[in-house]
Amino acid sequence: MKATQYKGNKTFSIIEREIEVPAKGEVRIKVAFVGVCGTDVHIYHGMMDKRVNIPVTIGHEMSGVVDALGEGVTEYEVGDKVVVRPLDDRLVKESDKGFNHICEDLKFIGIDSPGAMQEYWNVPAFTLHKLKENTDLKLAALIEPLSVATHDVRLSGLVAGETAVVLGGGPIGLLVAMVAKEVGANVIISEVNEARIEKAQSLGFDVVNPIKVDLVAYVKDKTEGRLADVVFEVAGVQPALDVMTEVAGIRGRILMVAIHGQKKEIDLFKFFWKELKLIGARVYEKEDYEKSINLITANELPFEEMITDVQPLSNIQNVFENIDQNPDGMKVLMDCTF
Amino acid sequence: MKATQYKGNKTFSIIEREIEVPAKGEVRIKVAFVGVCGTDVHIYHGMMDKRVNIPVTIGHEMSGVVDALGEGVTEYEVGDKVVVRPLDDRLVKESDKGFNHICEDLKFIGIDSPGAMQEYWNVPAFTLHKLKENTDLKLAALIEPLSVATHDVRLSGLVAGETAVVLGGGPIGLLVAMVAKEVGANVIISEVNEARIEKAQSLGFDVVNPIKVDLVAYVKDKTEGRLADVVFEVAGVQPALDVMTEVAGIRGRILMVAIHGQKKEIDLFKFFWKELKLIGARVYEKEDYEKSINLITANELPFEEMITDVQPLSNIQNVFENIDQNPDGMKVLMDCTF
Repeated sequence: MKATQYKGNKTFSIIEREIEVPAKGEVRIKVAFVGVCGTDVHIYHGMMDKRVNIPVTIGHEMSGVVDALGEGVTEYEVGDKVVVRPLDDRLVKESDKGFNHICEDLKFIGIDSPGAMQEYWNVPAFTLHKLKENTDLKLAALIEPLSVATHDVRLSGLVAGETAVVLGGGPIGLLVAMVAKEVGANVIISEVNEARIEKAQSLGFDVVNPIKVDLVAYVKDKTEGRLADVVFEVAGVQPALDVMTEVAGIRGRILMVAIHGQKKEIDLFKFFWKELKLIGARVYEKEDYEKSINLITANELPFEEMITDVQPLSNIQNVFENIDQNPDGMKVLMDCTF
Repeated sequence: MKATQYKGNKTFSIIEREIEVPAKGEVRIKVAFVGVCGTDVHIYHGMMDKRVNIPVTIGHEMSGVVDALGEGVTEYEVGDKVVVRPLDDRLVKESDKGFNHICEDLKFIGIDSPGAMQEYWNVPAFTLHKLKENTDLKLAALIEPLSVATHDVRLSGLVAGETAVVLGGGPIGLLVAMVAKEVGANVIISEVNEARIEKAQSLGFDVVNPIKVDLVAYVKDKTEGRLADVVFEVAGVQPALDVMTEVAGIRGRILMVAIHGQKKEIDLFKFFWKELKLIGARVYEKEDYEKSINLITANELPFEEMITDVQPLSNIQNVFENIDQNPDGMKVLMDCTF
């Protein structure tokens, strides 16, 4: 079988190795498609060399088919279409209070252990979700990032008729916007990149460029003064942090989706004055995956439009180099069939 | 009748004026006791001269007895013991979404309109809460600040068995700690002022001086690694903001009780990593007052210990001067009977 390996220094190699028999409790998956996540790009850039175990096979946004079962695995059959929820929570403790998906000793499969950018992938059976027979395997590679969005929207408590402002129209921002719209909310996206603005508009979204238009005034006008019921901060930049407390209305909920590595300045007075809530959200839980599987299988949202390129896995080096050259792209998939 | 007036420049005067007939929908209260709030001290320091209408009678933490009824007021009788919930929400709008207590055009009685530091006070009947016959009027002057605490604890969702860390052991911090303990939580107070530490300990609280003891390690040890389920940030200083995200456990809720006038640095990564929630809380709602009235009437918590001085209202100038000299004091009341 063929496998890719990140070797450090912005370099991937393709190696040949034996197909492994799945261990007890594990399943071997024949990987169909794997998506490139922002985190994968961070790894490629060497930003996570201290965490990953070089040389390492990365990748965690995937779809595939069960190829072999390890001892004791009875809930799956060879041929089942599946996706992996890449959270290894086997070290969960009492003090994690049952929040296994963010337990203190969580291992993220594809970062802390080998990932999906290979022909065959052995994973613990408890990480699998079965797809429907008619689920499209290409779209299914979006289930992992879509589950970030279904998790964010669920934790926000967003309901039909409310107004959601999504700060940042990249891949996760657009998926959040789609899920928010599907819930029945009025969605406004704030984005500064012209290509992303066009993309979001082509998907039918109301998009504001906050450099050209006063976002707060725009949302105030659209909501008869209520402002946003929910704000999703997906941009990860200081102007988004500045505007999020302005654009949220009374008792507004702000979902912190972006990852801020440094301490940032926040207007706490607005939290007091309007009784705002800031809600941190990380990865996903089982029910978020189930919701995403249903959405992907139904295929009524413009998921196809999210996939801007599909390349063979053998092109991995080019794929990562091209992502760096093309900040306008959305989701790039790799076909893992050799 | 006698009334006090803040005249600017750290000066109060006592004036003589006619007792007014209550207008339609209003009630005249014979004020019994009035407490001095941190906001009153801010006004005395001239920090709110732009907002208050000098010369002005301030004061909003009070108790009293109904003295006369304006036209159309049928729910009260002369002689009823009452407190005022000093929120004038008559300018509430649709866009306030029913959150009248923090509506955009809220007027705070005692700041934006005349307050309770006088013998008789006319207020809209809708601001009143009736006390029980056996409610102590001196303790009842604590109902307003206690309602800040019952509001904070209610919004936090704190339940029995959880651990609450209260950052700051001043008057509001202690009231929050009392209400949290009454809910059945394990309470740890963090405070740096030695007099306040002693006070909190004398009330039976577990108190940590974070300058001498590692607060996070202390809470971790006390909770078998769970850390705090709820953190109340009542201190209003950067070290409290730094520690709040450290001492909160997975899915911990952080109540922003302190008022931060300037933007502050916050560790948003911790919000993401542990799925923390930051909950802004301001003033109180009807049910918070009702809870506080029941607590004060039952008198099973050490409310008496909160009152460190009672002075006649005629001493108002001295009272405010002494508060500046004595940062260790808790709640000072003034007796409004001349």
